[in-house]
Amino acid sequence: MKLVVLGIDIGGTNTVYGLVEKSGNIVFRGQIPTFGHEPVENLVIRFWEKVDSFLEAHPECELSGIGAGAPNGNHFTGLIQNPPNLSWGDVDIVSILKEKFSCEIILTNDANAAALGEKNYGIAKDMSDFIMITLGTGLGSGIFSGDNILYGHDSMAGEMGHLSIDQNGRKCSCGLRGCLEMYVSAKGIKETVIELQKVNPGDDFLSSLEPDSIDGKMIDRAIDDGVESAISLYEFTADKLAYGLAQAATILSLEAFIFYGGYSQAGDRLLGPTRIALETYLMDNLKGKIKVLQSGLPPGQAGILGAASLIWSSDRK
Amino acid sequence: MKLVVLGIDIGGTNTVYGLVEKSGNIVFRGQIPTFGHEPVENLVIRFWEKVDSFLEAHPECELSGIGAGAPNGNHFTGLIQNPPNLSWGDVDIVSILKEKFSCEIILTNDANAAALGEKNYGIAKDMSDFIMITLGTGLGSGIFSGDNILYGHDSMAGEMGHLSIDQNGRKCSCGLRGCLEMYVSAKGIKETVIELQKVNPGDDFLSSLEPDSIDGKMIDRAIDDGVESAISLYEFTADKLAYGLAQAATILSLEAFIFYGGYSQAGDRLLGPTRIALETYLMDNLKGKIKVLQSGLPPGQAGILGAASLIWSSDRK
Repeated sequence: MKLVVLGIDIGGTNTVYGLVEKSGNIVFRGQIPTFGHEPVENLVIRFWEKVDSFLEAHPECELSGIGAGAPNGNHFTGLIQNPPNLSWGDVDIVSILKEKFSCEIILTNDANAAALGEKNYGIAKDMSDFIMITLGTGLGSGIFSGDNILYGHDSMAGEMGHLSIDQNGRKCSCGLRGCLEMYVSAKGIKETVIELQKVNPGDDFLSSLEPDSIDGKMIDRAIDDGVESAISLYEFTADKLAYGLAQAATILSLEAFIFYGGYSQAGDRLLGPTRIALETYLMDNLKGKIKVLQSGLPPGQAGILGAASLIWSSDRK
Repeated sequence: MKLVVLGIDIGGTNTVYGLVEKSGNIVFRGQIPTFGHEPVENLVIRFWEKVDSFLEAHPECELSGIGAGAPNGNHFTGLIQNPPNLSWGDVDIVSILKEKFSCEIILTNDANAAALGEKNYGIAKDMSDFIMITLGTGLGSGIFSGDNILYGHDSMAGEMGHLSIDQNGRKCSCGLRGCLEMYVSAKGIKETVIELQKVNPGDDFLSSLEPDSIDGKMIDRAIDDGVESAISLYEFTADKLAYGLAQAATILSLEAFIFYGGYSQAGDRLLGPTRIALETYLMDNLKGKIKVLQSGLPPGQAGILGAASLIWSSDRK
């Protein structure tokens, strides 16, 4: 008999899922569109059919639980609370899953799931205090502190995307000003590109970027080719990122920041200047001590591995 | 037999100590100058003599341990590390205490000790996620998260005084810019008064303040008398404080901030405008949920109660 856990990572556009062994081996996985305008029950039926077919064809696999990560997933209540880009309002995903699957089910938010993946199967195995930062459309974060996920009072801790780095800064869709994700994420880089295009209307590289559909790989290539304005774009982004990281480090006393998702693929093009700037924003007792790393987990797998690990670590399995 | 724990709160100017029962009842306490220019051994001898005399005269009291809080006290190593305003460098206070007292000894930093006092004997009894902020010469903070003190990787977590609220802000003695304590603490209020005196040279109240020896009670009285410039001084301070609190709340998802020490005595004169400003800096999911409170513990006692509680909670005593 092969014990497996279903790890689910619900995203604004796609949902990925996998049957994971305790070792982290994924025996089966898939991806389907989330279709956030439809009821969440439809999403559950669509991946239940896939998982159910696989399990019927592989009777040696026994499902021992489900771990799910979702935007605004509340670990304490089992509710997905008014997730951005999904028209669900508050949904009791744990109860909805229970109608299809008769096993233990645990929910957390998507960024915490990614952090759990890194802790249990990635480069954070020996770390107790780190933040996993996901650079996508926005900026998500999951915090490990004292060897545990930091949930806070209402399970919504770790909103580093909405850490404000400038009291009078860029206006965020959340209503606040200066939120880190308005500088460091697809949204933030778009804003910076628009600003830079205005200041440097004759710059070939900046002119070649279409703010609404910037491809990170274009920026990477320009940096590799030594294009000054591309290098400046990431130096500005890295400076804002580093200033934000320093504030989290000052409060939490961390070992590392680990980057995952879209723009983290830039690697040292973005993380190199971030490391340099971070040192200038840290107190003496933290200088030289905090690593800025790129996740080694394959794209799309941190969330399902981490969500699955919620079950593996919940009892003696 | 009456079991007691010696709680010690080492400060830059004075050291307070007390013999504390598990209930929080302080059976004996005292205060001596720290004399930070002398070796730390002299300080230990001076309070050891007082405690020893008391215990000899009260054979019914049995000393079951020592908890100590000190600036830059490292819970993991037992070292006080280069404390500000004390010329000790790094001192192994736990070993030094062991030469005089043969019992269990636990160290933490002064702000954590105050937070432990509030958690075990104050208004935070039923709270799992809060920050205790001490407003003195500087701004200290101890963080409870998930019902535990948050120590971080090197036991130095919780440095909210050095959370930067302005990338280009006031220069701090730590070398960074915009540190919260440069706006909210005796040091910070001094800077604000100097700035306001320059802008409003004819203001009677501001002119009456001597920046190097500002008495918080003078500001309190002026606010009670409706003096506009005094009200503005605390509104500015409250705005900076609230912006800083919001960043910590965003990362940690808290129930409350609890204020203790010197300027916290201003009570609602400072905390009232802080509450109002805080709401403007919080994300929707935190708005209306985070309390801003004044500690109810008597001045000077949070540290010794909290330090003592390190022993009471360390085993089955």
